[in-house]
Amino acid sequence: MANQKVVLAYSGGLDTSVAVQWLTDKGYDVIACCLDVGEGKDLNFIQQKALQVGAVNSYVIDAKEEFAQEYALLALQARTYYEDKYPLVSALSRPLISKKLVEVAHQENATAVAHGCTGKGNDQVRFEVAIKALDPSLEVIAPVREWSWSREEEIAYAKEKNIPIPIDLDSPYSIDQNLWGRSNECGILEDPWAAPPEDAFGLTVSIENAPDQPDVIEVEFDKGVPVKIDGKHYPLSELILKLNEVAGKHGVGRIDHVENRLVGIKSREVYECPGAITLLKAHKELEDITLVKDVAHFKPLVSQKLSELIYNGLWFSPLRNALEAFVKETQQYVNGVVRVKLFKGHAIVEGRKSSNSLYDEKLATYTSDDQFDQSAAIGFIQLWGLPTEVHSTVNKQQKVKN
Amino acid sequence: MANQKVVLAYSGGLDTSVAVQWLTDKGYDVIACCLDVGEGKDLNFIQQKALQVGAVNSYVIDAKEEFAQEYALLALQARTYYEDKYPLVSALSRPLISKKLVEVAHQENATAVAHGCTGKGNDQVRFEVAIKALDPSLEVIAPVREWSWSREEEIAYAKEKNIPIPIDLDSPYSIDQNLWGRSNECGILEDPWAAPPEDAFGLTVSIENAPDQPDVIEVEFDKGVPVKIDGKHYPLSELILKLNEVAGKHGVGRIDHVENRLVGIKSREVYECPGAITLLKAHKELEDITLVKDVAHFKPLVSQKLSELIYNGLWFSPLRNALEAFVKETQQYVNGVVRVKLFKGHAIVEGRKSSNSLYDEKLATYTSDDQFDQSAAIGFIQLWGLPTEVHSTVNKQQKVKN
Amino acid sequence: MANQKVVLAYSGGLDTSVAVQWLTDKGYDVIACCLDVGEGKDLNFIQQKALQVGAVNSYVIDAKEEFAQEYALLALQARTYYEDKYPLVSALSRPLISKKLVEVAHQENATAVAHGCTGKGNDQVRFEVAIKALDPSLEVIAPVREWSWSREEEIAYAKEKNIPIPIDLDSPYSIDQNLWGRSNECGILEDPWAAPPEDAFGLTVSIENAPDQPDVIEVEFDKGVPVKIDGKHYPLSELILKLNEVAGKHGVGRIDHVENRLVGIKSREVYECPGAITLLKAHKELEDITLVKDVAHFKPLVSQKLSELIYNGLWFSPLRNALEAFVKETQQYVNGVVRVKLFKGHAIVEGRKSSNSLYDEKLATYTSDDQFDQSAAIGFIQLWGLPTEVHSTVNKQQKVKN
Amino acid sequence: MANQKVVLAYSGGLDTSVAVQWLTDKGYDVIACCLDVGEGKDLNFIQQKALQVGAVNSYVIDAKEEFAQEYALLALQARTYYEDKYPLVSALSRPLISKKLVEVAHQENATAVAHGCTGKGNDQVRFEVAIKALDPSLEVIAPVREWSWSREEEIAYAKEKNIPIPIDLDSPYSIDQNLWGRSNECGILEDPWAAPPEDAFGLTVSIENAPDQPDVIEVEFDKGVPVKIDGKHYPLSELILKLNEVAGKHGVGRIDHVENRLVGIKSREVYECPGAITLLKAHKELEDITLVKDVAHFKPLVSQKLSELIYNGLWFSPLRNALEAFVKETQQYVNGVVRVKLFKGHAIVEGRKSSNSLYDEKLATYTSDDQFDQSAAIGFIQLWGLPTEVHSTVNKQQKVKN
Repeated sequence: MANQKVVLAYSGGLDTSVAVQWLTDKGYDVIACCLDVGEGKDLNFIQQKALQVGAVNSYVIDAKEEFAQEYALLALQARTYYEDKYPLVSALSRPLISKKLVEVAHQENATAVAHGCTGKGNDQVRFEVAIKALDPSLEVIAPVREWSWSREEEIAYAKEKNIPIPIDLDSPYSIDQNLWGRSNECGILEDPWAAPPEDAFGLTVSIENAPDQPDVIEVEFDKGVPVKIDGKHYPLSELILKLNEVAGKHGVGRIDHVENRLVGIKSREVYECPGAITLLKAHKELEDITLVKDVAHFKPLVSQKLSELIYNGLWFSPLRNALEAFVKETQQYVNGVVRVKLFKGHAIVEGRKSSNSLYDEKLATYTSDDQFDQSAAIGFIQLWGLPTEVHSTVNKQQKVKN
Repeated sequence: MANQKVVLAYSGGLDTSVAVQWLTDKGYDVIACCLDVGEGKDLNFIQQKALQVGAVNSYVIDAKEEFAQEYALLALQARTYYEDKYPLVSALSRPLISKKLVEVAHQENATAVAHGCTGKGNDQVRFEVAIKALDPSLEVIAPVREWSWSREEEIAYAKEKNIPIPIDLDSPYSIDQNLWGRSNECGILEDPWAAPPEDAFGLTVSIENAPDQPDVIEVEFDKGVPVKIDGKHYPLSELILKLNEVAGKHGVGRIDHVENRLVGIKSREVYECPGAITLLKAHKELEDITLVKDVAHFKPLVSQKLSELIYNGLWFSPLRNALEAFVKETQQYVNGVVRVKLFKGHAIVEGRKSSNSLYDEKLATYTSDDQFDQSAAIGFIQLWGLPTEVHSTVNKQQKVKN
Repeated sequence: MANQKVVLAYSGGLDTSVAVQWLTDKGYDVIACCLDVGEGKDLNFIQQKALQVGAVNSYVIDAKEEFAQEYALLALQARTYYEDKYPLVSALSRPLISKKLVEVAHQENATAVAHGCTGKGNDQVRFEVAIKALDPSLEVIAPVREWSWSREEEIAYAKEKNIPIPIDLDSPYSIDQNLWGRSNECGILEDPWAAPPEDAFGLTVSIENAPDQPDVIEVEFDKGVPVKIDGKHYPLSELILKLNEVAGKHGVGRIDHVENRLVGIKSREVYECPGAITLLKAHKELEDITLVKDVAHFKPLVSQKLSELIYNGLWFSPLRNALEAFVKETQQYVNGVVRVKLFKGHAIVEGRKSSNSLYDEKLATYTSDDQFDQSAAIGFIQLWGLPTEVHSTVNKQQKVKN
Repeated sequence: MANQKVVLAYSGGLDTSVAVQWLTDKGYDVIACCLDVGEGKDLNFIQQKALQVGAVNSYVIDAKEEFAQEYALLALQARTYYEDKYPLVSALSRPLISKKLVEVAHQENATAVAHGCTGKGNDQVRFEVAIKALDPSLEVIAPVREWSWSREEEIAYAKEKNIPIPIDLDSPYSIDQNLWGRSNECGILEDPWAAPPEDAFGLTVSIENAPDQPDVIEVEFDKGVPVKIDGKHYPLSELILKLNEVAGKHGVGRIDHVENRLVGIKSREVYECPGAITLLKAHKELEDITLVKDVAHFKPLVSQKLSELIYNGLWFSPLRNALEAFVKETQQYVNGVVRVKLFKGHAIVEGRKSSNSLYDEKLATYTSDDQFDQSAAIGFIQLWGLPTEVHSTVNKQQKVKN
């Protein structure tokens, strides 16, 4: 009788390499699956390594443009910062990876899917909830959580099974990266009083080392989608990667965050999102001139809920679809150009213009061009302040009476 | 029969100087009232000038500490950024100025209060709603809105009445300042595509001119109140002013904002809030380690509503009291020290510590000290994902059936 | 030179009849326009009367189904109760009437549009903001607000101009009606301590007079749209009107509300919405079994904002479109049948079923059929309660220390 | 060596009686603790029965007034309906029972606390999170969840241990009751298409059997606290119990709810809350005339969050304190009298009056007493509609251009 098949999210690191063997020991045929979501790894090498450590098949899927269009773009348009700080790096890639794992599982008639997460992070939740949402009949296996080995035990097992030990094994950090950014945790970062050391960063230079000359770029948006830099069109994934480079060179996008994980603990994470932060700032400024106040004041509620939902692994929940429908409806007006100065860790929006701009110089100006009817303010203030005035009249009299 | 008295919010500038005369022409005795909320003006000079241009009495009131304790502090603790950008500079001082005007009016048996605002800004609303809330029986006069003169007509009137014309009359800008920051509008700033020129700024150096060496300071909070810098205690108003100086020297706190005014238009404003931004960032990081997730995730709703309410002139509304009660209740845990690096326009929190810290290295760590029960995650994920799983099962079967 | 044309929202009552003449006096050619949104008036009579009192042209437009599909349906699906009580009766018809007025204005090359509202209600805002949103170039005239006559002056003018005085002129009430309900104000209703007398109601019987036998009906929904009653299909407008009759007979849908008007005052209104309330209750119960918790818990925020926005005359604002996009996305799952018992003023949902039901008896049951994994609860509770537990541990130790 | 002690929440039913024995078998000394929160049971009998089935000590604590003042009152003032339907009956008593269990545990030097909940309800979460919040060092035991017996196995064990089998064991229902209401689930109620049968109800008569004459009562509130009925003062717990009786007699307060449990499933519950519903309706009407619009429109967000938090077992979370601070601040104005007609299942508010009433007949009236300045509306509407108008102008031109 043939073995059952499991599709494993494979990264090429020690944990998932050991997992190939461990799952094989359990009687599975392991199909490794590595997604390119813009982390800039050598994918050919990873694909081969999977086979070398025992996978029966090994997939590498370029999902960069799909990730940009379907995941990062919503994060940009909705302006999702978890806890007002973290622009959802790994939280965005997990549902896409899950989707691809399930697709491969269907293609390969696999009965199970596996991931390399531990039992205390958010990613285990994101993988498992996403997979169950996409195909509740698939079994989900979490080898690292299940084997509960110490580092030493894991290495001993790896040596016994001839699994190559990566040379950077001594790195204190745990890193994840995609085109929307890079996250880092562990090691000295676990002390929230300690400043993150320079070796914790990989996508950005320090402000100290940033150039003394700014770069000024113009980003053009079409219906909320960034489409051009300095007049040149790029596919979205390339546009983000290009900004990672340009803005990273100026030290833009370092974030140091003590955050509330879904699993009930606080953890300290360091993020680098040079492209994402540049785009998020530019997009906000364009919305500031193109959205009416009522939309601009309600959208943050949608953003916050969407941030929490994505962070909490509920991408494939119908609430995401409904919130996305809200966001997409607002983006039709978000057209125009934003001029951004990249300098010493800043992405400063210096100018914004749009054919949909609701900023009306004729109404805003204090020069003689003014078309605003100042006399209307009198009636406006009278009615605007009326509830407060009545409250005050009644309740002060009330106090006197009592 | 004696003239009726009016208390005028007096700034020493052309508009309110002309207003003294204009109100006198209308048959009022004008009592000038100038508040020191930390704008750093020569108040003696202003007090004398009021009398010189025709006021029958002239008050100067030092309200810096009251402003810091009762107004700026709430903005800090609630983290009120209007439209996620503007930390409510003028919006915070208007209710306090109104309160003092009403107090002087009561003291002087005045029947009216006057302010120098035009008919298209937010400040007219803030003054008038606040004054009506504090004493609905007082008449409110807005001379500038009422006379509707062009600049030339106003100057002609001033010359005719021997009112001194300020030497900076040609400044294109309209500036307001208090210890929480400085706002600037008009002139070239009315073009949202143009970068704000250096002469638009007064409290901060440019990043280009910021020093190449950072200052690193430690700010200590006691129940959400910043009480010490580098171990030295300051009254709140002095602490903020000191930070304005230190952080302003590093170019911290420049904000360029196209905002939605209450009166229905968008306007472009430039703000500088070096002290405020430094404190807001430090306070947030301290909350990140001391507030539980549920509080941290609901508080932004309170902040947004409070920001809008204060921006919209409703400080003396019972909703402010209720939102403030929420905020104050949360601050008892916000104790500790935050280390901030001021450098090249940044106020970077590098470290935070608190005896109320909920960050628990024993729970967060990935080292062998780990006390987190990873097996609990399995049950957690199962129930957390259950609604999505049931939804998926039902509605996919549904699609098949249809 | 030809007169300019004005399109007047014409109701057949005294105010708008006088307005025809008053506008004609001002030099306009008046085009009367009466919309049928389900108020059950004699429209032929109104159309003729408009001509009789001086209109140059008179339109009657049957907009019942458009009102039902485009306006009432959104109110149903979003469950918009203003201040948790008022299901937006007149607030829903005003934008549609405005739209039709603008269409007729375009057709007739009119330069102005007029409505019969006074200066203290919400409807003036709804008409004027809607018209300006649809065509900012049209002038809006509010004759009743402008002439500021007392009742006696208005009658004197009407007599002078041979305008027929309606026989019900002595009615103390001010009534508006459409298929979503009937509103009533004025007279004794202005005393919030007084119970509304029976003659204030027109669509419903009193509970005292309701039949002693219930009617039990089954309402079927397709994607959130009520399509059938007791298995019989109806166009939406007819379905609502039929429910008005059936539920009105049982006294369902009386509402007595002291509400906050947009113009700053509180007013006491009496509403009758037998069909609307029946549908709103049935629809909620169907959502209760078909929407996942996250959607069900966020949708009320959308509902509240949408209620306020519609109440406040901002139907034609882009925020309505965005909120509507959210709501519509959720409705695809709202299919099924709800059994409602109409009895003594109640619309009681007794049963609900759906092929999209997420209620899973196998998971919910306490019988031996139970498929819920109770052991999962242990891990769930451990992590769910962890933040509170850590907070408690830290801050109690803290209290001991201090 | 002495046995360790466990404090068991004891109800007198089969589950907790068996738990006494089961815990004793495990080597514990069991201290039974039964709280009177208004469920109207024979507490003496329960106290004795605990001893009879093996408890070493048995407490009965009258917590009715504490429950009313500290728990039910907040639910009333905050108007907490979970999912707009369920007024939080059991969810309110669980934290209080937990608190008393912990107090008894401290008094008795017990090391553990036990409850009789299964593994699929909300109550297990409420107990365990509350206990951990109050004393993280106490062990929590859930015998029923742990033993996982079928009904037959449990009865066999009971017989073997001479534990009396209750005579109502065949009741299909699972009932919990306190003075805020009664909840019922299981049996036929698990079918959401079936109407709840009459035997599912215990506090209310059916509408069919309700009297043909209404009772009209006046409820007086002092700072949001109901203090008198028809002019007679009652302690809060007695006032609620009295209303349960009077309103229950008229069939008020039956609720049939398919709700989303915290543990991820939907369940169908039937509630009866005659007193609670009467008070909630009366209180809302008093708020409608005493709270300004801004407070009235924000408070529902607080209510919803508080409802979810209490439902989800987080009473002893600092967010509850902060939300409560908000609510309490608003209640100072909620003074006055509400007249309620109890009739055929309805609690109809017919009249409301307050010395803090913001309803101003002089402003609201359409008679000649009108003091509202209708001309103010013109300026108000102009600015209120300005953003929509500018949006329309820009984006329609935009569409033409494109």
